[in-house]
Amino acid sequence: MAGQHLPVPRLEGVSQEHFMQHLYPQRKPVVLEGIDLGTCTSKWTVEYLSQVGGRKEVKIHVAAVPQMDFISKNFVYRYFLLRFTLGIQITCFKPLRYLYKIHMAHHLLHKEFFISEDEKYYLRSLGEDPRKDVADIRKQFPLLEEDIKFPKFFKEEQFFSSVFRISSPGLQLWTHYDVMDNFLIQVTGKKRVVLFSPRDAQYLYLSGTKSEVLNIDDPDLAKYPLFSKARRYECSLNAGDVLFIPALWFHNVISEEFGVGVNVFWKHLPSECYDKTDTYGNKDLTAASRAAQILDRALKTLAELPEEYRDFYARRMVLHIQDKAYSKNFE
Amino acid sequence: MAGQHLPVPRLEGVSQEHFMQHLYPQRKPVVLEGIDLGTCTSKWTVEYLSQVGGRKEVKIHVAAVPQMDFISKNFVYRYFLLRFTLGIQITCFKPLRYLYKIHMAHHLLHKEFFISEDEKYYLRSLGEDPRKDVADIRKQFPLLEEDIKFPKFFKEEQFFSSVFRISSPGLQLWTHYDVMDNFLIQVTGKKRVVLFSPRDAQYLYLSGTKSEVLNIDDPDLAKYPLFSKARRYECSLNAGDVLFIPALWFHNVISEEFGVGVNVFWKHLPSECYDKTDTYGNKDLTAASRAAQILDRALKTLAELPEEYRDFYARRMVLHIQDKAYSKNFE
Repeated sequence: MAGQHLPVPRLEGVSQEHFMQHLYPQRKPVVLEGIDLGTCTSKWTVEYLSQVGGRKEVKIHVAAVPQMDFISKNFVYRYFLLRFTLGIQITCFKPLRYLYKIHMAHHLLHKEFFISEDEKYYLRSLGEDPRKDVADIRKQFPLLEEDIKFPKFFKEEQFFSSVFRISSPGLQLWTHYDVMDNFLIQVTGKKRVVLFSPRDAQYLYLSGTKSEVLNIDDPDLAKYPLFSKARRYECSLNAGDVLFIPALWFHNVISEEFGVGVNVFWKHLPSECYDKTDTYGNKDLTAASRAAQILDRALKTLAELPEEYRDFYARRMVLHIQDKAYSKNFE
Repeated sequence: MAGQHLPVPRLEGVSQEHFMQHLYPQRKPVVLEGIDLGTCTSKWTVEYLSQVGGRKEVKIHVAAVPQMDFISKNFVYRYFLLRFTLGIQITCFKPLRYLYKIHMAHHLLHKEFFISEDEKYYLRSLGEDPRKDVADIRKQFPLLEEDIKFPKFFKEEQFFSSVFRISSPGLQLWTHYDVMDNFLIQVTGKKRVVLFSPRDAQYLYLSGTKSEVLNIDDPDLAKYPLFSKARRYECSLNAGDVLFIPALWFHNVISEEFGVGVNVFWKHLPSECYDKTDTYGNKDLTAASRAAQILDRALKTLAELPEEYRDFYARRMVLHIQDKAYSKNFE
């Protein structure tokens, strides 16, 4: 049984006011067309980016196959110093001729790839110290700042981070959610994005913030039978499109062409709701983490009981949560 | 859509050894026929019980209609002193001519019923002080003790209580569970018992230990749509039959004829698992109550979040409970 397929609505020429008053409160994904993003959409060619250059230590995901798998870990992280030029060349999937190697020097002396000849690359820019600093392309890539305008569809003080995303054609990022609201700005190139509602979490076989169902187009329904119940929202992003991904919405992204994307994350909730150590925008809200810890204590208590009783009272706990904490306002 | 209907197995001449080694570990209801219950099954006629007499203050449920409703509370509790004779007469639904009134004296001076002419009665015997003492018919009705043998299918030290149950014909007790294992001994008369597995708790619309679905034969599926998923086990109990109701199994009992039943509860788990203040055998196990209290703290923490987030994290908590505490061994 195939799940329900739903298009993500596309709206052209949406004003800040209209977005904030009418679209944002709906907490549903929407593609905004024709937003003024500055000159980046025409300017950020490979050639231009090569010229503005800059040298940067970056961390990339290197995957042997296009579909990255966080369970079997079919990718590795590699740090190296690259000229910005090179970042583009990597993701263009050209030989790594110009590689400035640091950590991986001994690996790279004799070959021009990390793990296999047809490996794929995925760059997600980070803050200066990724454990402390959030990514902000205006800081890490100041030469590019003046070319891009972020949609000012939130208050300046809500801004959290802006992130470069560059990946090899075909590379697929697993289905996951973030806790921050998010504009995915497709500057150049093309992506396909599939989204699932937070309400469908129970059909996605989660492991942390990620879905274990990697192949969303041909899922193993014997292993993941409930996945067929998940309502699948889908859109294509072309250069200049901006996708609003509300916090908690699951998203799976395939780069159909080489291209440059920029993510802007911002805070929908008061700052104190978010984990202060979160530099990625994907750590669970502090209240949720505390609740999860408390729940673990409850489960430890239940574990004192024999299986038959533990199972029964676990079911009763579930009924209690559904009664007390599930929203009655959602479909 | 009607739920699955399943018969409760009936077995004749089961030995103590066979029960304890083969049936008991299955934790499923079974009707035992031909168990030696002593002389009670032939002796306990209304006439005999009237003769052995005794005076007793008892508490009875008085209901205006046969189907007792714990939500609308269509019954009242009434305490009065009755000769044992009278208890039978009440449940035979004869006029209350011989009533010795204490608490309700002013109500009963001028009429021979409590709430309506066609009211129904249900007597469940209690301990001397029901808040402290458990019911044991051997203590509260010593004159009857020698007539009845309880099936010795558990260890003497596991014994918890024995309870008289006498009710008007047609009276229906709502679906509920107890936390103790239980033999329902049909001494005289006839009952129909419908049971549901603890695993089907989520289809029963629970309020505490009780199901809100009162009319199990013609349920309001618009109000209780999931009820149709509950697998319904059913049996008829005739004089001399003994029904094993495992702890946590839901049961709904209709007295099809006037008759006398005796329940024997015993402890399946070590004594310390049970609530020490429980005189009825239906208070949740202490570990379960503690877990429920801890869960409430977790829900209070979640409640700090806006609805959308609370709903999402509540769903994640449910997934976590299902993953960690649900048994994988049940069908």
